[in-house]
Amino acid sequence: MTNKIAILPGDGIGTEIVAEAVKVLDFLNADMALGLEFEYGLIGGAAYDAHGTPFPEQTLALAKQADAILLGAVGGYKWESLDIAVRPEKGLLGLRSELQLFANLRPAILYPQLAAASTLKPEVVAGLDIMIIRELTGGIYFGQPRGVRLLENGEKQGYNTLVYSESEIRRIAHVAFQTAQKRQGRLCSVDKANVLECTELWRQVVTEIGKQYYPEVGLSHLYVDNAAMQLVRAPKQFDVLVTSNMFGDILSDISAMLTGSIGMLPSASLDAANKGMYEPIHGSAPDIAGKGIANPLATILSVAMMLRYTFNRSDAAGRIEQAVNAALNANIRTADIYSDGMQKVSTCAMGDAVISAL
Amino acid sequence: MTNKIAILPGDGIGTEIVAEAVKVLDFLNADMALGLEFEYGLIGGAAYDAHGTPFPEQTLALAKQADAILLGAVGGYKWESLDIAVRPEKGLLGLRSELQLFANLRPAILYPQLAAASTLKPEVVAGLDIMIIRELTGGIYFGQPRGVRLLENGEKQGYNTLVYSESEIRRIAHVAFQTAQKRQGRLCSVDKANVLECTELWRQVVTEIGKQYYPEVGLSHLYVDNAAMQLVRAPKQFDVLVTSNMFGDILSDISAMLTGSIGMLPSASLDAANKGMYEPIHGSAPDIAGKGIANPLATILSVAMMLRYTFNRSDAAGRIEQAVNAALNANIRTADIYSDGMQKVSTCAMGDAVISAL
Ligand SMILES: CC(C)[C@H](C(=O)O)[C@@H](O)C(=O)O
Ligand SMILES: CC(C)[C@H](C(=O)O)[C@@H](O)C(=O)O
Repeated sequence: MTNKIAILPGDGIGTEIVAEAVKVLDFLNADMALGLEFEYGLIGGAAYDAHGTPFPEQTLALAKQADAILLGAVGGYKWESLDIAVRPEKGLLGLRSELQLFANLRPAILYPQLAAASTLKPEVVAGLDIMIIRELTGGIYFGQPRGVRLLENGEKQGYNTLVYSESEIRRIAHVAFQTAQKRQGRLCSVDKANVLECTELWRQVVTEIGKQYYPEVGLSHLYVDNAAMQLVRAPKQFDVLVTSNMFGDILSDISAMLTGSIGMLPSASLDAANKGMYEPIHGSAPDIAGKGIANPLATILSVAMMLRYTFNRSDAAGRIEQAVNAALNANIRTADIYSDGMQKVSTCAMGDAVISAL
Repeated sequence: MTNKIAILPGDGIGTEIVAEAVKVLDFLNADMALGLEFEYGLIGGAAYDAHGTPFPEQTLALAKQADAILLGAVGGYKWESLDIAVRPEKGLLGLRSELQLFANLRPAILYPQLAAASTLKPEVVAGLDIMIIRELTGGIYFGQPRGVRLLENGEKQGYNTLVYSESEIRRIAHVAFQTAQKRQGRLCSVDKANVLECTELWRQVVTEIGKQYYPEVGLSHLYVDNAAMQLVRAPKQFDVLVTSNMFGDILSDISAMLTGSIGMLPSASLDAANKGMYEPIHGSAPDIAGKGIANPLATILSVAMMLRYTFNRSDAAGRIEQAVNAALNANIRTADIYSDGMQKVSTCAMGDAVISAL
């Protein structure tokens, strides 16, 4: 049996960090006979420059026939004045939607070795381990109608539509409750049910699913403004959070930043069969692209998530996670997580350090 | 000349904290001949219980003929299962919309006396002074169509509409640029222009207004996820932030929480003629309502904003702000801002402390 992985490095530091993750996969592939096969494709700005579209047909085809996708990052200053329809981001959004990768898992974990990097007080974030589950193929990101129209008085009006059906809410709720079951058994659903009818339906459906299927999971609800506040006030109160696409975008970035080291955080975007796209939660960082100083650990840890969720190889995933820990314990740091007394290394040297710890 | 103030205490701790703010106003009214007249009305859950609607006609009439409105807070567990259309929140949203209070000013200031209450490291928040300007009468809070419909397959679908016209964006942009002019001259506009067409228009219009009328103000743009992150990473990089209704709801609560003392933060919601509604940014806190322990300072400071923005009495506003500072310097604290060695006082005693410092 072969396991096909589509490799989409994308833009900015994407190529550099993905190269290190592939190095790690190559090593494990040989060492553990994982049967992984790689095929490369273009996405985002790189695809736009080559083909005039951020999401070429052949990339979609490649992604569809793959079992898993490893993505670097998309976007950059270079393409910022393009229309939304052909921006690099559209490649990423297209993949999520076409492959129905509706469940986005974004862990926010504080590495004790890097605890000092958090802007929050140590006692507030020590031991932080939150899982944010973001709905990824619905909501206002994809709702129709959308666009800009001309009003009768001659002025422009921009509009987008937030929309969720019961079945879309149900399937993400199941993922969230099941994730909570495997963790501390607590799920907090985030909405704005006091103002938006769409999220009132969200709250109702999540509540029903909980009562019917997961009565043992402790379910709570927060309005999004309060949830954002609580993440800053007392983040350790949370185990698993589940929310809609737009709120999840914001809350997962807050959670990530609480750890102080977003260069460390992976993510998984799964479909109903656990086929998945894996990517670091950080972006393409055009300001440091090409310098060989980006942190590849978030991408390497994304590969660990891939092995665990799509390929059911927790053993291999665990080896990667331990090797990352070992590299940190050996005081090896890329620039973004460097502090006094540590050894500052390049992107490539960090990849090597992980491999030698495997 | 008389200056009419509509007093709408609302729910939960609303009545307790508004009573203290009125005490302060009464004192200044006598002391400085401000010519203020008060009239009370019902809003939110209190209005729903009395009249079956959170936003009675007579309250709207009262608010319309007043020059300024002082609001406590609305909402509570008691009304949480009501439909959105009759929830306490609807009273607040109705007022904002009917009076076209489109410019919501939410300062986030760290009081040096309370610096220890922040969950962020002292060096990250020392001296924090941000002004968030939130568009308050448009966006997804008010967009049509909205509701829950039945799909052909029998399942429900919830939907809301995010919508902004050029003129709505222009008027809030003017307020934001002018606020930045009076401060450090830096404005950051927050959107999700890489995904949502509506906020792409937002970015264009804000950029145009800046070029045409305020070339001396330093304008930057951030995507909302990044803005939320930056607020946690390095909040002092910001001077004035301007954003849409929903994003402003979230970002202003984050900023408030950075200070560690949301019981201290006032807000103003202004129309085109600086008629305004003034309220603390915190909520109705039903868990501590009726205990006489709530912090009235955010409401008292809201009254200072009222005197400054609506009544052009910066002198009176300054006196209140100095008196609040004096009370803090005298180590007087309500429970929410209490720490070892301080003197813990009731809501009423805090009001008295401010008055005796006036
Ligand atoms: C690049 C952008 C379209 C994307 C999003 O908003 O989903 C990113 O911010 C993310 O969170 O993955
Ligand atoms: C009570 C609620 C409707 C309100 C809002 O979302 O605007 C509140 O959170 C606020 O920020 O003033």
